[in-house]
Amino acid sequence: MQITGNALIETSQFTWPKGFSADSTHAGFKPDQDDMGWLYSSTPASSAGVYTTNQFQAAPTKLTKQTINLAHQLQAVVMNSGNANSCNGTQGETDALMMQKMAAERLQIDPKLVGIASTGVIGEPLPMDKIKAGISQLKLTENVGVTKAILTTDTHPKTITVKCLIDGQKVTITGFCKGSGMIHPNMATMLGFVTTDAAIAGVELQQLLSTTVDETFNQITVDGDTSTNDMVVVMANGAAGNQPLTKDAMDYPTFVSAFKKVLTHLAQEIAGDGEGASKLVEVNVSGAYDHQESQQVAKAIVGSNLVKAMVFGEDGNWGRIMQAIGQTSAHVDLNGVSVAINHLQLVHNSLGTGIEDDKVAETLKQHKVVIDVDLHAGKATGTAWGCDLTYQYVQINASYRS
Amino acid sequence: MQITGNALIETSQFTWPKGFSADSTHAGFKPDQDDMGWLYSSTPASSAGVYTTNQFQAAPTKLTKQTINLAHQLQAVVMNSGNANSCNGTQGETDALMMQKMAAERLQIDPKLVGIASTGVIGEPLPMDKIKAGISQLKLTENVGVTKAILTTDTHPKTITVKCLIDGQKVTITGFCKGSGMIHPNMATMLGFVTTDAAIAGVELQQLLSTTVDETFNQITVDGDTSTNDMVVVMANGAAGNQPLTKDAMDYPTFVSAFKKVLTHLAQEIAGDGEGASKLVEVNVSGAYDHQESQQVAKAIVGSNLVKAMVFGEDGNWGRIMQAIGQTSAHVDLNGVSVAINHLQLVHNSLGTGIEDDKVAETLKQHKVVIDVDLHAGKATGTAWGCDLTYQYVQINASYRS
Repeated sequence: MQITGNALIETSQFTWPKGFSADSTHAGFKPDQDDMGWLYSSTPASSAGVYTTNQFQAAPTKLTKQTINLAHQLQAVVMNSGNANSCNGTQGETDALMMQKMAAERLQIDPKLVGIASTGVIGEPLPMDKIKAGISQLKLTENVGVTKAILTTDTHPKTITVKCLIDGQKVTITGFCKGSGMIHPNMATMLGFVTTDAAIAGVELQQLLSTTVDETFNQITVDGDTSTNDMVVVMANGAAGNQPLTKDAMDYPTFVSAFKKVLTHLAQEIAGDGEGASKLVEVNVSGAYDHQESQQVAKAIVGSNLVKAMVFGEDGNWGRIMQAIGQTSAHVDLNGVSVAINHLQLVHNSLGTGIEDDKVAETLKQHKVVIDVDLHAGKATGTAWGCDLTYQYVQINASYRS
Repeated sequence: MQITGNALIETSQFTWPKGFSADSTHAGFKPDQDDMGWLYSSTPASSAGVYTTNQFQAAPTKLTKQTINLAHQLQAVVMNSGNANSCNGTQGETDALMMQKMAAERLQIDPKLVGIASTGVIGEPLPMDKIKAGISQLKLTENVGVTKAILTTDTHPKTITVKCLIDGQKVTITGFCKGSGMIHPNMATMLGFVTTDAAIAGVELQQLLSTTVDETFNQITVDGDTSTNDMVVVMANGAAGNQPLTKDAMDYPTFVSAFKKVLTHLAQEIAGDGEGASKLVEVNVSGAYDHQESQQVAKAIVGSNLVKAMVFGEDGNWGRIMQAIGQTSAHVDLNGVSVAINHLQLVHNSLGTGIEDDKVAETLKQHKVVIDVDLHAGKATGTAWGCDLTYQYVQINASYRS
């Protein structure tokens, strides 16, 4: 990504913010890659989280939520891939607590300052010997291995570092995440971690995270399925030395923009790396009755299997976009809808413009496909991100455990 | 299908009920198969319909709905495949009216007694020369070609004839339908036609259809997408000579069972013939808080891409069934859920039973996969039908128009 219009906000090489350490190791969940890691702040950090809405919330997710809600403070997060410790009943809860305790002992901090995260297969007991071995191997380093250690079917790590100036101090916001299948609105199947050296109170941070997630992570969908484990956790340790940020601080809008830039990038990265995906699809809805309906319609289009297969097939069959709009309950001017793909107008006043199929097929060859829809029912706008539906998606999910 | 427990109800060879004729012809929408057809009753028949909930309801669907709502009477339905006459604006509405008028003139009946149905590509003008040629070629015969002429991506016609005794008279109920992709609750992308020689008033017929559709066609899903065109139309011409059926008639329950048997069979046929499907999936939910939630959960499971891909992959990854349950808002005993596939219990009290993967893989090789789920949250039960997600689904929908 490039420097934004706002010169105070720029992306940079991946780096941990001041006062943060990390590490990763191979604990044996996966054949030969790192599968455990942690994040550590030299001082307790203001912390906030958002969590899956799936009713079967996994033990690590529940425990991290409870821990953060105690005082909105964390000093470390320890994580593993390869096993989700989900649907494991009371044993799963005992194991999650033990994982938290082991990490706290190794770091010599209060367990109430340790978050945990697990991702992988559901319903298999967490092998505590591996967790124990992994934690004993983890060190406090600058290395970025943890951004790989949490991956499951992802094809690459998803990271970003954004820097901005907050009352004269250089503030760094660094985020990374995993998520490829089971991606859907409401925090499903995705782990996201954002660290910053900004000073901001936990409650303010929680409000900012919850609002920003609605516009970013909750607007991506790969397959409409939601999982049991996933969450986004933010830690802000104040090492940058700015005045603690509040809503009325002069530079608060700058921090908000920088923070949203981080989450937007990570969300798009996940959508574009959806299981088997060959293209990133962005749907921008305008002319909606209200914001909620604009988000609903954008997600309905980006989530439609028929639209996703159409993008994969590079076939401008716009009727499928109309049916995806029509199946929502959103206000729509039924004779006023326009649809464009990569700025080629396919539909005007709900009628095909007669644009040549091969022109549309040509633009659909691009890796990023942008669908613009105007409902002519109001002034609200919204955006959602997803990917195409490919043979590889089916293949990956037909044999996930093999 | 075999004779049911109720000896008064039996399926038989496909045959039109007394007083019904049909025919099909090649009007040129498709390269070389019949693509137009009609149904005709020698006398005006009590009629009822249910229609897509998609906001972009196609012109033929709207017109047939208006026509039936005039007096719940039809004498004929004319239909074409290859073009949906959807999203064609006022021209589409003019063409639909013309199609109705042409059929009425050819049959020398009132246009207000003619329903029309179109299915195929959205957003291309209906070629009226082909419609005109087709109608001029159609005759009044016994042949069953119309059951093929309405097909799009279906691999085979879907038909059933059920006979029952209503106050001593043999009553025949014959149904056929098309539908393969864009199949989802609420009457989407599906055309269904049921003819019977039973005597029953139009209003009673409408009530019976609406209730029965909720339990049958609205409980199938192939891809979660809903279309603009589709409907189920029933015609009852009374030629069997029974006393007009009312709710308090002694044999009303017999007719209801026979009618439901027809719609259930057609719904299952559609689910099993979903685009690219290799398996029929039936999900039975018990222990639900209420009926609506049992139906919601059954549909969530059968509609989950991850569950569908798992069935295709013959991989008993039951965690995906749990996540599909958990993503609904239904009441669930989070520690009490049980899940079985083809009667192999995979989950008890929300925990894996440790059953061997290869046992599950073995049973998943069957063409019909039955998933039984008990939510332990009440007494209500519900069923939904769907299919697996295969490479062929993606292939078909990546190149539907090619």
